[in-house]
Amino acid sequence: MKKTLYFLCLLLLAGHITVAQTKPDYSRITLVIHGGAGTITRDNMTPEKEKAYTAQLNEALKTGFAILEKGGSSLDAVEATVRVMEDSPLFNAGKGAVFTNEGKNELDAAIMDGKTLKAGAVASVTTIKNPVSAARAVMEQSEHVMLIGAGAEQFAKEKGLEIVNPSYFRTETRYRQLQEIRDREKTKLDHDGGSGSNEHIFTEGHKFGTVGAVALDAYGNVAAATSTGGMTNKRYGRVGDVPIIGAGTYADNNTCAVSATGHGEYFIRSVVAHDIASLMDYKGMSLQEAADEVVMKKLVKRGGEGGVIAVDRHGNIAMPFNSAGMYRGYIKKGKSEVAIYKD
Amino acid sequence: MKKTLYFLCLLLLAGHITVAQTKPDYSRITLVIHGGAGTITRDNMTPEKEKAYTAQLNEALKTGFAILEKGGSSLDAVEATVRVMEDSPLFNAGKGAVFTNEGKNELDAAIMDGKTLKAGAVASVTTIKNPVSAARAVMEQSEHVMLIGAGAEQFAKEKGLEIVNPSYFRTETRYRQLQEIRDREKTKLDHDGGSGSNEHIFTEGHKFGTVGAVALDAYGNVAAATSTGGMTNKRYGRVGDVPIIGAGTYADNNTCAVSATGHGEYFIRSVVAHDIASLMDYKGMSLQEAADEVVMKKLVKRGGEGGVIAVDRHGNIAMPFNSAGMYRGYIKKGKSEVAIYKD
Repeated sequence: MKKTLYFLCLLLLAGHITVAQTKPDYSRITLVIHGGAGTITRDNMTPEKEKAYTAQLNEALKTGFAILEKGGSSLDAVEATVRVMEDSPLFNAGKGAVFTNEGKNELDAAIMDGKTLKAGAVASVTTIKNPVSAARAVMEQSEHVMLIGAGAEQFAKEKGLEIVNPSYFRTETRYRQLQEIRDREKTKLDHDGGSGSNEHIFTEGHKFGTVGAVALDAYGNVAAATSTGGMTNKRYGRVGDVPIIGAGTYADNNTCAVSATGHGEYFIRSVVAHDIASLMDYKGMSLQEAADEVVMKKLVKRGGEGGVIAVDRHGNIAMPFNSAGMYRGYIKKGKSEVAIYKD
Repeated sequence: MKKTLYFLCLLLLAGHITVAQTKPDYSRITLVIHGGAGTITRDNMTPEKEKAYTAQLNEALKTGFAILEKGGSSLDAVEATVRVMEDSPLFNAGKGAVFTNEGKNELDAAIMDGKTLKAGAVASVTTIKNPVSAARAVMEQSEHVMLIGAGAEQFAKEKGLEIVNPSYFRTETRYRQLQEIRDREKTKLDHDGGSGSNEHIFTEGHKFGTVGAVALDAYGNVAAATSTGGMTNKRYGRVGDVPIIGAGTYADNNTCAVSATGHGEYFIRSVVAHDIASLMDYKGMSLQEAADEVVMKKLVKRGGEGGVIAVDRHGNIAMPFNSAGMYRGYIKKGKSEVAIYKD
């Protein structure tokens, strides 16, 4: 009898602890997204394009938020949100990715779980329909963080992820962009006397297409995910900041979740996402202060164009960018906004 | 006349500033190296092996320090030092790298300049004799930070780096290690009823071979370089922390230069190198305090085995590791030491 009572007490205690740890707080659930930064101005936008981007950003927000509202994890929310943007031809990620110099679409993605500090990333993959889901599979179904190229594709295939013909990612708009850059490059090479110094052309137009999402769920866990096709006309197997944990993607419940978009090389050198987290953790800055310090001061000083989206465990958000525009949006209980330009 | 005097004053002032900035201070030049961490104990070492490692570590130190003594840059010193270890069959980098599951040697390397915050990295390369030099070429001769696979090899070839047949990297010792791990894996698979759960085998033996160097030159500039063959039996294009700027390699004159060696996945998730720099920068910790905090506390708590070497702009050094041993050494004016075990 005594034993049974003791056992019952233990059960009650265990139940209480579980309830205390997992009591969901739906008032704070938050989702923030971006669809790339760069010289996005009203001058180079049409009403139709604006409408299409706005609709797609709203759909992405709605998809991820529905998961959070049902008590789903921030990890599930950011993955689903990024998948919507990967599947849309409008963004430079998944379908609609930019072309490499060789006329291929090479994709990078990463995801990080702020609760466990686990992370996954893939780089230079050409056959995985949703690279963000491959990144998640790496995180959850391997002991590794980063898998690249054919190896990553083999892994994704073995784990049952959707594999597509590389032509799936092709859009005429992006292919035309490659041709235009190649033409400009040729002109430039002719003017330079064929010096081969064409590296600045990579970033001409300054559109750093990337998609990303950060979220806070009802259980107080943050997560971040980012996906990209990289730079138009990129060559030599170039990898940017997106799949680099700490640069383009980072999440830690203790501080914040960050997803970046911009001139990747600068973001890698500045370890952007982890620097924002460190400023909060070690200097006691607020999320907005830390994000502004890195994006609007450090990166500007160093010449790094772009922006980030971030959320902390209290549901505070920050979306600073130092470029002309950034496709972005957020959704919280009863509040939602999508924006493109600076003003 | 007044104008000429003014102009002369300006010239003198400019001269003075230049002299002040570039006056070399040879008393502080420092070089620190590692050759990998893990379960390196007296029990599993022979006197011959110990002698060979000690000699090779001393040669690497001597090579790099000679550069610093002649007023060479920390960047030149760490590159030359790492090249010595890449060329040695003793270390898991360059010649003597471990084998992948497919029986290949896939190499990763990175370098970072603390003065400019410029960085370069290559991953999964199989034909570049000295990956660290390829990383430097990426940093100095491209606008990129990270190039991978065949693209990186193409770039290195175009820049005139030494290209070798992949068989150059092969050593019988490493090939035998692969066979042994494969045998153990097979046994384990048989015992597991062929469940395919063989991921722990990757790290069996816990030897995280990597080589790295950090240096402070007479001009007050720090630099870091790291090079590795990764994990024996690795598959799926796995990339560890070495070529991830902020994780395995980082340098900033403002704080320190760090090169890591250990279970890469944990080092990526913890953004180890940048975290050490952040603790100095934002919390005012000393180099030793910051390195200990990350390696002996955070990583231990998270289960991440390994260590780092680090130097700050004053010439302070730190070489903490939480594994049984770490091949390591340092050299300063009139002082030099090489060590393997904990005690």
